[in-house]
Amino acid sequence: MLEELKQRVYEANMQLPKHGLVTFTWGNVSEIDRETGYFAIKPSGVDYDKLKPEDMVIMDLDGNKIEGKYNPSSDTATHIELYKAFPNIGGIVHTHSPWATSWAQSGRGIPCYGTTHADYMYGEIPCVRNLTKEEIDEAYEKNTGVLIVDFFKDKDYVAMPAVLCKNHGPFTWGKDGMEAVHNAVVLEEVAKMAARTEMINPKVQEAPQELKDKHYYRKHGANAYYGQNN
Amino acid sequence: MLEELKQRVYEANMQLPKHGLVTFTWGNVSEIDRETGYFAIKPSGVDYDKLKPEDMVIMDLDGNKIEGKYNPSSDTATHIELYKAFPNIGGIVHTHSPWATSWAQSGRGIPCYGTTHADYMYGEIPCVRNLTKEEIDEAYEKNTGVLIVDFFKDKDYVAMPAVLCKNHGPFTWGKDGMEAVHNAVVLEEVAKMAARTEMINPKVQEAPQELKDKHYYRKHGANAYYGQNN
Amino acid sequence: MLEELKQRVYEANMQLPKHGLVTFTWGNVSEIDRETGYFAIKPSGVDYDKLKPEDMVIMDLDGNKIEGKYNPSSDTATHIELYKAFPNIGGIVHTHSPWATSWAQSGRGIPCYGTTHADYMYGEIPCVRNLTKEEIDEAYEKNTGVLIVDFFKDKDYVAMPAVLCKNHGPFTWGKDGMEAVHNAVVLEEVAKMAARTEMINPKVQEAPQELKDKHYYRKHGANAYYGQNN
Amino acid sequence: MLEELKQRVYEANMQLPKHGLVTFTWGNVSEIDRETGYFAIKPSGVDYDKLKPEDMVIMDLDGNKIEGKYNPSSDTATHIELYKAFPNIGGIVHTHSPWATSWAQSGRGIPCYGTTHADYMYGEIPCVRNLTKEEIDEAYEKNTGVLIVDFFKDKDYVAMPAVLCKNHGPFTWGKDGMEAVHNAVVLEEVAKMAARTEMINPKVQEAPQELKDKHYYRKHGANAYYGQNN
Repeated sequence: MLEELKQRVYEANMQLPKHGLVTFTWGNVSEIDRETGYFAIKPSGVDYDKLKPEDMVIMDLDGNKIEGKYNPSSDTATHIELYKAFPNIGGIVHTHSPWATSWAQSGRGIPCYGTTHADYMYGEIPCVRNLTKEEIDEAYEKNTGVLIVDFFKDKDYVAMPAVLCKNHGPFTWGKDGMEAVHNAVVLEEVAKMAARTEMINPKVQEAPQELKDKHYYRKHGANAYYGQNN
Repeated sequence: MLEELKQRVYEANMQLPKHGLVTFTWGNVSEIDRETGYFAIKPSGVDYDKLKPEDMVIMDLDGNKIEGKYNPSSDTATHIELYKAFPNIGGIVHTHSPWATSWAQSGRGIPCYGTTHADYMYGEIPCVRNLTKEEIDEAYEKNTGVLIVDFFKDKDYVAMPAVLCKNHGPFTWGKDGMEAVHNAVVLEEVAKMAARTEMINPKVQEAPQELKDKHYYRKHGANAYYGQNN
Repeated sequence: MLEELKQRVYEANMQLPKHGLVTFTWGNVSEIDRETGYFAIKPSGVDYDKLKPEDMVIMDLDGNKIEGKYNPSSDTATHIELYKAFPNIGGIVHTHSPWATSWAQSGRGIPCYGTTHADYMYGEIPCVRNLTKEEIDEAYEKNTGVLIVDFFKDKDYVAMPAVLCKNHGPFTWGKDGMEAVHNAVVLEEVAKMAARTEMINPKVQEAPQELKDKHYYRKHGANAYYGQNN
Repeated sequence: MLEELKQRVYEANMQLPKHGLVTFTWGNVSEIDRETGYFAIKPSGVDYDKLKPEDMVIMDLDGNKIEGKYNPSSDTATHIELYKAFPNIGGIVHTHSPWATSWAQSGRGIPCYGTTHADYMYGEIPCVRNLTKEEIDEAYEKNTGVLIVDFFKDKDYVAMPAVLCKNHGPFTWGKDGMEAVHNAVVLEEVAKMAARTEMINPKVQEAPQELKDKHYYRKHGANAYYGQNN
């Protein structure tokens, strides 16, 4: 089981450079096996072009290393908080992808300007606040997760599988590592087009609610009819 | 005949990722055989790197599937409206190409700022309005086509083979699938340069009419002299 | 001699897609043999990936085709005017490269903001006016050349091997086809950085004269010391 | 020893085109052997795709050529000043990478808007003033180095391994040539995202001090815990 999980997480990680989402080692993917509660995650600071499936680190949700010769990603504690609070997700991605990170640095959420966004993410992609000095000093990576979880406590994290951390960068999630990567690619594309949309028309308004509904529910839920699974 | 049509439409579809116009499955090309009234179109939600000629779906203009194991593109009903109303076109493309989509999201048509635009498209590339909630609820994809057709009812759809749908993205067309793809590439390039032109000079004016005429008619119509067919 | 010239012009043309300066057939390179007065130029509207050395068209400076099965580039008459008026150049390039074209569309010359520009081009890269309707109707391509030549009549075309044609795009030149291509690449890079420079600091000023002098004369003229030829 | 140094500097130079930091010959890397005081540097104006390890030029800190058939980079005198004044560096890079150069052309330092920046560079990346005409005329390249050294005389050049020279471009450094290249890549990415951050939110503020501290010291110094070396 663990070998298969490592292989899957390795393959999901390798999608990040393929889609142009990472420079050097600035990104990581994890995926959890909900039965055992173990998850596999990229090792910290290891180059993508040297990465091998067996390098993935197996962790449990208490932060214990179960298997692996390397240190896990420095963002591991953030992943743990998300897995604990979001039972319906199976994979998490963090990157410094340039457009999403530029929005995060600007401190703004990404308004929904069109159907590309609405097809995957329902409403504005949120940008959560900075951690305080106390939160940083106490447990930076863990508290990043706590902050995200707190933000989503009265929201639907399945319908909004992405968040921007102010002055830092994005996290995305999904039913497994590959879907989390898929959402990271969507986020970068949506972030790029939203910035250009405002450049072309500084007074632009969000897409109308009925269009957002139509596109989201065309792909999600009981009445979905996009693709082959219906 | 159908095998040949599928092959052609497959090849035209594969030009979209080659020219950087699609992320994941966000695009489709169709081409019609006017004798039979059958057209081939990309299946819905199938990855470009797994696509094969035999996966193309054959449809008729009443929306019946004639051949194919997959569901056709979810935009099929839009294609049908265009084929029915525009007798002189043989191919249609829809993408979410980033610059054209950014203009669509901004709700603005693309002014003609130069000869690259004028060589292919005569005048401002229009951006049609949002559908109303009623139009969306009734038949979203069909009414997208109806709206485009209505917009062009007193205009020359051959001289303007592109349209932006507000908060959504572009459609282009041409005498066959390949020419429709060609126009999609032109549109993206023109959209990119128009945005940058306004960034460099926010007070820029459209190109003079005589220059637009010169370039369009240098390549089109009885007096064309660009290329080898004259 | 002609075979060698065709080969050289073919290779120079193939540098345009390699450097990302052309989409489809939107560009051409020519090179002249000053002894015979013949020049080779890309055929009109032929795809770069099908182009072969023997497809190059040989012309003389009166516009007669000397050799070749294809029509020459539709911009041939512009090239002829430049060769006739600028005796110290041996190659010419025209493209619709996106950043340079965006400046041309905006109707602005490109200010010299730094040493990348100053290393190759002395002062602001000029943007010449639109042709009048009369000039277009009489002889569009020829009069484009006449306009450029007229602009440079009291200027040093060797120290400024580039020009933007308003609402159209750039021409560059050099001692041969390859150097003209080199200058086309420089122009695109300089155009991109100048636009971004103004985006970062809308009140930016041109680089100081002494810096422009230093960099230009470090690479050109009797006291040059950049590279290996000194 | 010298052969190994040449090989290392060759490999570091070849990373520049790989990471998209150079057009033509617009960049150079050097690395010093502190025992002998010799450093290897790219030859001036030689194309990257023709470069070989044996082409690297060996120099001493008095500017004497020790070995090599080519002229060294025209920026050699700048490198010498930095090596003499910064004893804890072993490699230097100069490029005209487009985003960093656009900031240099704009005359602005790059504010720290996020953790990507803070992970590598502590505080605003400075932009040093233009040289005066006298400084240019006396010894342009040497005085570029003198100016940088003077700027850093009361600052920590290890915590800020990058500088922008106004109207020119960036220099970066590191413990060896490869680390200097690494910092050049980081700088370009940070410069790109900072420009886009301001485009998205023109009123953006710098990242909070505690976040900058956290990220810098997570990767540097006695308490670092990023990566595998701890």
